[in-house]
Amino acid sequence: MALYLSSRCTGISPSATLAVDTRAKQLRAQGKHVYGFGVGEPDFPTPEYICEAAREALSLGLTRYTPVAGTPELRSAIANKLEQENNLSYSPKEIIVSNGAKQSLLNAFIAILNPGDEVLLPMPCWVSYPEMIRMAGGVPIAVPTKESEGFLPNVNLLRKLTTPRTKAIVVNSPNNPTGCVYPRELLEEIAAFAVEKEIYVVSDEIYERLVYDGYEHVSIASFGDDIRKNTIVVNGLSKTFAMTGWRIGYAAASAEIVQAMEAYQSHATSGPNSIAQYAAYKALANGQEYIRAMREEYDARRKLMVETIEKMDGVSCIVPHGAFYVMLNCKELIGRGFGGRIIDDAQTLSIMLLDAMNVAVVPGDAFEAPGFCRISYAVSREDIRDGLAAIGRFIAQVD
Amino acid sequence: MALYLSSRCTGISPSATLAVDTRAKQLRAQGKHVYGFGVGEPDFPTPEYICEAAREALSLGLTRYTPVAGTPELRSAIANKLEQENNLSYSPKEIIVSNGAKQSLLNAFIAILNPGDEVLLPMPCWVSYPEMIRMAGGVPIAVPTKESEGFLPNVNLLRKLTTPRTKAIVVNSPNNPTGCVYPRELLEEIAAFAVEKEIYVVSDEIYERLVYDGYEHVSIASFGDDIRKNTIVVNGLSKTFAMTGWRIGYAAASAEIVQAMEAYQSHATSGPNSIAQYAAYKALANGQEYIRAMREEYDARRKLMVETIEKMDGVSCIVPHGAFYVMLNCKELIGRGFGGRIIDDAQTLSIMLLDAMNVAVVPGDAFEAPGFCRISYAVSREDIRDGLAAIGRFIAQVD
Repeated sequence: MALYLSSRCTGISPSATLAVDTRAKQLRAQGKHVYGFGVGEPDFPTPEYICEAAREALSLGLTRYTPVAGTPELRSAIANKLEQENNLSYSPKEIIVSNGAKQSLLNAFIAILNPGDEVLLPMPCWVSYPEMIRMAGGVPIAVPTKESEGFLPNVNLLRKLTTPRTKAIVVNSPNNPTGCVYPRELLEEIAAFAVEKEIYVVSDEIYERLVYDGYEHVSIASFGDDIRKNTIVVNGLSKTFAMTGWRIGYAAASAEIVQAMEAYQSHATSGPNSIAQYAAYKALANGQEYIRAMREEYDARRKLMVETIEKMDGVSCIVPHGAFYVMLNCKELIGRGFGGRIIDDAQTLSIMLLDAMNVAVVPGDAFEAPGFCRISYAVSREDIRDGLAAIGRFIAQVD
Repeated sequence: MALYLSSRCTGISPSATLAVDTRAKQLRAQGKHVYGFGVGEPDFPTPEYICEAAREALSLGLTRYTPVAGTPELRSAIANKLEQENNLSYSPKEIIVSNGAKQSLLNAFIAILNPGDEVLLPMPCWVSYPEMIRMAGGVPIAVPTKESEGFLPNVNLLRKLTTPRTKAIVVNSPNNPTGCVYPRELLEEIAAFAVEKEIYVVSDEIYERLVYDGYEHVSIASFGDDIRKNTIVVNGLSKTFAMTGWRIGYAAASAEIVQAMEAYQSHATSGPNSIAQYAAYKALANGQEYIRAMREEYDARRKLMVETIEKMDGVSCIVPHGAFYVMLNCKELIGRGFGGRIIDDAQTLSIMLLDAMNVAVVPGDAFEAPGFCRISYAVSREDIRDGLAAIGRFIAQVD
């Protein structure tokens, strides 16, 4: 038999958001200042009390294997958090800690999907969902949304796209990349639909604490026992506690689902880093003041970004109410010229912006949102001002 | 569509070694002293210079996402280590860092196996291999070995079991659970066989530094370009540096294979914990004296364990030359009685030993080695003496 790789692996697109980030890092390594609107991670350092907890873990010698699903302390702390902040009642046994929310999401798809099962996926969406669904043997079914409707999915359309193979729907609110926050009424409609059709809901709530303008985050699993049974709630510490590098995420679901995820994780990675688990346990116990201050800073940056864009020619955006992203509508620029070349699409535009202006953005093509670029305001206000000004100078040179 | 889990996940057996460990931990939580021969992890704490590196990482603010395949520093340090210690020449781009060697192994199987592809698996073997192969869509093909032949695989048997669907062979030397170390000649034979048949070699070298009695660890990929091209070398920091809880493993292979593994990992977990990667980088730079002392202590324990077993009735073992495990032959006890119950198999025996004597062992059934129990000498000499004495008292009561 000849040496060749699996078709599963050769078909995977590497994460496009990380690709932009990698290229930006290369430019930085060359000494250039890059306006890093491509990032999907907080620019804040991990709060000192959490770093201190990690030092404590080292002193306590917590350097051994933990249980696969996480330490009892952390699982209890997560159960408490879900109870107090999300009106969700899960026992520690209904919680599994993983290497980032990413692993919880993949575990979830692997636990529920048989080959050919379909997953409803509102678009634009985070780059990894379609890949994860395919990696788990499933088929992502794109559910288009419109900028004019705030990028919110339409439940009638969900019904229309439902087939006998529909096994799950992904709910991601606050949303990456659009920044939209699903209103309670929409979530109630989706819940009723999921219960009626007997499909799972994978609810990615990683941006839950980043909501603005009086919007509230509501967990779809909180609407009652019926929808709770269908739902896998996924969350993590990365965004809320600026702990991206620590790789601590988690899922909450019925014990049956969690056991399936645990069985898979037991052979995939074992439990996550023991020191990070201890730090996460301490983080959850004592973070409210930090989170409030962080949210306020993001809010100020969001307003600055939106107000600046509203004054610019050639690009526009709707106001996002959550996460830390703006979907920059660049459709007016597509098909026009810059430096003797045609701006074919958002992908081309993003490369031109990086090369000509040292501005990193993520082309919407990666999110199935052609003509848009995702720009993150998880960067300093100064960079927001200067980076958007650079985009403005670029646009001024577009033919 | 009704709510039901994937057949992939419901078919997975949770890791049996961790199951024993969990039960032993429960007994300990009740205040009992358990002789923990079930463990697969060093009882040493992580060396202080590595913990100090973690503190340094925190001070440096290394708490952000790393590249998916690991930091450039760590990948370079691993390339240097492979060059200096294993006579292997890999560039940093041919190396991927993962959440423990476990993830590197699963990544490897996922990268090379299409549904139905067969993997030759010398038995007894580590519990996770067959599950991982199945999780990747492959079919594990058991290659039996004999205690009387030192648990080493026979290359004629490998040839006999090879079919047009054979895609890979697993080589795990030093071996878990048998403690055997494949001689250079055997590895050369396996390499020639793999090159001839064009099959991949997944070489799990996690116990490489734990060899005794003048035995040497040889990496199969070091025999030349042909076999290097077929091989995925997997290793990690867990056993050598007592860093089990940190979750840092790695793989080295051709760039094509590493890229496939990286694509999968980018959507499965991203890069591992950033602090642990920095600690691992420092660990590799400066660990020789620590490793020598650790190896000497394991060697002393190994001799104590083997000498004690040789004086016992009802059980026996061959001398292991690597890793930190002894395969305890318990066949004389099977079918006999204890406390009015029949010892049906090693599984029953292990439960009886835990319940009656507070001795934790791993039944060989988990390793496809019925009639054997794996006992680890990664425990103190005192526990080896007292725990084996407890087994001796148990045997004295067997009818």
